[in-house]
Amino acid sequence: MTTPYEKFISAVKEVYALRSAQALLGWDQETMMPAGAGEGRAHALSALSKIVQEKYCTPEMGELSQNLLEDNNLSLAQKSIVSEFKKDRDKLVKIPPTLVEEFAHTTSLAQQVWAEARPKNDKAAFNPWLGKIIDLLRQKAECLGYDGNPYDALLDEYEPGATSGEITVFLNDLKKETVPLLHNIMDSKVKADSSLLFQPFPVSVQKAFNNVILKEMTFSLDTGRLDVSAHPFTEGIWPSDVRITTRFSETDVMSAIMGTIHEAGHGLYEQGFLPEYYGTPMAEAISLGVHESQSRLWENHVGRGEAFWKHYFPEFQALFPTQLGTAGFDTFMLSLNSVQPSLIRVEADEVTYNLHIILRFELERDLFAGNIKVEDIETVWNTKSEELLGITPDCAGNGYMQDVHWSVGLMGYFPTYSIGNMYAAQLFHKVHQEIENLDEEISRRNFHPLREWLRAGIHQHGRMYPAKKLIENATGEAPSATYYIDYLKEKYSRLYKF
Amino acid sequence: MTTPYEKFISAVKEVYALRSAQALLGWDQETMMPAGAGEGRAHALSALSKIVQEKYCTPEMGELSQNLLEDNNLSLAQKSIVSEFKKDRDKLVKIPPTLVEEFAHTTSLAQQVWAEARPKNDKAAFNPWLGKIIDLLRQKAECLGYDGNPYDALLDEYEPGATSGEITVFLNDLKKETVPLLHNIMDSKVKADSSLLFQPFPVSVQKAFNNVILKEMTFSLDTGRLDVSAHPFTEGIWPSDVRITTRFSETDVMSAIMGTIHEAGHGLYEQGFLPEYYGTPMAEAISLGVHESQSRLWENHVGRGEAFWKHYFPEFQALFPTQLGTAGFDTFMLSLNSVQPSLIRVEADEVTYNLHIILRFELERDLFAGNIKVEDIETVWNTKSEELLGITPDCAGNGYMQDVHWSVGLMGYFPTYSIGNMYAAQLFHKVHQEIENLDEEISRRNFHPLREWLRAGIHQHGRMYPAKKLIENATGEAPSATYYIDYLKEKYSRLYKF
Repeated sequence: MTTPYEKFISAVKEVYALRSAQALLGWDQETMMPAGAGEGRAHALSALSKIVQEKYCTPEMGELSQNLLEDNNLSLAQKSIVSEFKKDRDKLVKIPPTLVEEFAHTTSLAQQVWAEARPKNDKAAFNPWLGKIIDLLRQKAECLGYDGNPYDALLDEYEPGATSGEITVFLNDLKKETVPLLHNIMDSKVKADSSLLFQPFPVSVQKAFNNVILKEMTFSLDTGRLDVSAHPFTEGIWPSDVRITTRFSETDVMSAIMGTIHEAGHGLYEQGFLPEYYGTPMAEAISLGVHESQSRLWENHVGRGEAFWKHYFPEFQALFPTQLGTAGFDTFMLSLNSVQPSLIRVEADEVTYNLHIILRFELERDLFAGNIKVEDIETVWNTKSEELLGITPDCAGNGYMQDVHWSVGLMGYFPTYSIGNMYAAQLFHKVHQEIENLDEEISRRNFHPLREWLRAGIHQHGRMYPAKKLIENATGEAPSATYYIDYLKEKYSRLYKF
Repeated sequence: MTTPYEKFISAVKEVYALRSAQALLGWDQETMMPAGAGEGRAHALSALSKIVQEKYCTPEMGELSQNLLEDNNLSLAQKSIVSEFKKDRDKLVKIPPTLVEEFAHTTSLAQQVWAEARPKNDKAAFNPWLGKIIDLLRQKAECLGYDGNPYDALLDEYEPGATSGEITVFLNDLKKETVPLLHNIMDSKVKADSSLLFQPFPVSVQKAFNNVILKEMTFSLDTGRLDVSAHPFTEGIWPSDVRITTRFSETDVMSAIMGTIHEAGHGLYEQGFLPEYYGTPMAEAISLGVHESQSRLWENHVGRGEAFWKHYFPEFQALFPTQLGTAGFDTFMLSLNSVQPSLIRVEADEVTYNLHIILRFELERDLFAGNIKVEDIETVWNTKSEELLGITPDCAGNGYMQDVHWSVGLMGYFPTYSIGNMYAAQLFHKVHQEIENLDEEISRRNFHPLREWLRAGIHQHGRMYPAKKLIENATGEAPSATYYIDYLKEKYSRLYKF
């Protein structure tokens, strides 16, 4: 006799197995696929996506998950699997297939329009598509339902449970502290010179160094890979098949290293789910903010920190004697952490990065609240850029048209980057309290204690707890911007001596 | 209004899109997948395979294809798409899912048993699994139906329309000529010394040379890739995404080159289907024999021929001056084509290769006809080996347990290798008549005329004509062993001077 739960879990595992195939097709498209194979791949992805959607939405799965929610014989983990699956299913059921199709079709075309329009600053070409996407996202929000701002329905896709209200509070706190911090840095007599890291660095030597770091970070190559792609990303095909990418620039040595450390941080999360939950929501990230907390903890708190470089720097210097031979440790650390307001988010440093996010968040929030019209986006963007960063874009391509995100329909996504920063700081603060000699271990290139702590506190829980609860469980208090603000102030006042 | 054909073709294209995903998962497993990811991959493949099976077998597709067969408004190509799809569907419908599942389960385990048993010559471990597989294949043959020998139902899976009767005639002709040919070669005063090609050859130089050949063969890297795997293979993920592999041996320089040329021959077939038929049976190989004819034409008739090496040899020699610096062209050609009976099929030369196939074919045929029992396989194998090759295996691992094929359930598959040889010789003979200066073009490294002829005669037709008809259309006569036998006799009597 098959129990209802057995029936349910076997269907869930089928869905996750099919999603694993989707993930591989996506990864391959960015890393291995020949240039001329795009059309065939689009057919395969769209056929798979249709089937996955159908498998989630069968009436049987609706009934089973509804009934199992009330089944008191289930364990806590089983209950969580049921309720998290049901949550995903409920969302999918609410959006009519015609809207899904129109959204896919529109964003696929809009992305091409954006790619052509951006270098030409062709606002007239891009704006109608942006308007159409915003309109479709409004329809989606209406289907999903929300309290207050329709934007909250979009946020929930990436950061379940987050609201624009609470993100506003957090980002306002951050803004209030970051803007004066940036002024202090700019006014400091200490001037960072990042040109040290922008010289010709042979890629083959870079590769070898990246592989050493990756291995020492304990990213498993038995259950993962590192490849190269145009934009670094992590694809969890299965928790035992986690693929990360980086990119190598001959003239920017930190591009690959920071890409590798960042993505390996994501990768360790995906490799840290518990095997007994593979193929269920319990072996999946709870939110993008939590995912980003892992990548940013490793990239910024570890990879841009003194403890990390204390022992890596001599090796790094020995690998590149012509480029780094005469540089002192302090000069190097300052180069690595140099702060300079710039127009482009993806090139921003740790301090100004959040200002880019605040700009996008406030704009998206007010757009969906009905306070901004599409044709006003550029003006609002430029005003906020001046206010936050002290600079105004020289053109739309370096302003509101710079990111691919909007053209592919990603609105409500940007704030997860800053949420990740906040969570990362709180986690890193806590792990320092719990592992007293953590800096020492890091500077001995022993990342095992840190990885184990993150695994126990975050990774292994999958989607068992909501993001905020997960952070609270791991750190003993509710998420707060304090640790992140303190971290930024302490680090940069030290580096820039004020 | 959607016509029945539009409805049908859209479902066909969905099936082929899903099969494209399956193909990618298979390719990735052999080339890129981390070692520890096998279990997750098995889930994904089995979920996909179940869905593909279901999509073929819906009652609606049965009804649609039946009705469309009688629709006189369809074009010839549309009719062929319907009838070929229906042929595939009819086979799938006949085999009960329980048998499919038991077969997949059994062969998956049997392959592991084989891999462990072979090095230990552990017949007691392997034979029960072999017996079980033969039993399941008998059940499959009963489901599929056959005239005479159940083996014909299995042959039809790989070489549609072929029968054991006609293959017996062909292979008897070949045997009658090959055995004395081999004796003449062995008795010749000319002794080939293949050790010239078994020296240390740096892999990086080999790789560069392989890439040159691949490009000159006109294999498109815009719609294909070359990678490395344990056993070379070709995976057509889509006709615009054809992936071939080779393997590099430091001490056997021809292993990679012949692997590349062979697989590129397969690859050109897959790249040569017509774009308007992508996602249908008209953009698919008609049989394994025809597929193999393409790989073997390139590998043997081109890649082991004088015209090919006339211009490649000086370059090859210059790349490896220490290894090949003093060798003359004739010595090199003799090394490349040296004949020596050996126990292992995959290491066999062009002359003895077919004897290995004849052995397996006769054994499989008689096994399914009920004339041989599982426990007699080794004795029959060893007797035939002595009779055909003049040598008896020293152990089961070098005898009947040498190939992976039986353990994964591939019976009826081996003959397609010799059918491919026969078709290749007939095609190569014909193309020489039609393109008078073909050898000259090949020796100028211009493979375009040959590729175009194969594309026009074979590739572009997909499954439009049955294999034998396709060869007849391309060459003006029904397939016959004559050209292949003449080719072998002419080539080897010239090389071995008798």
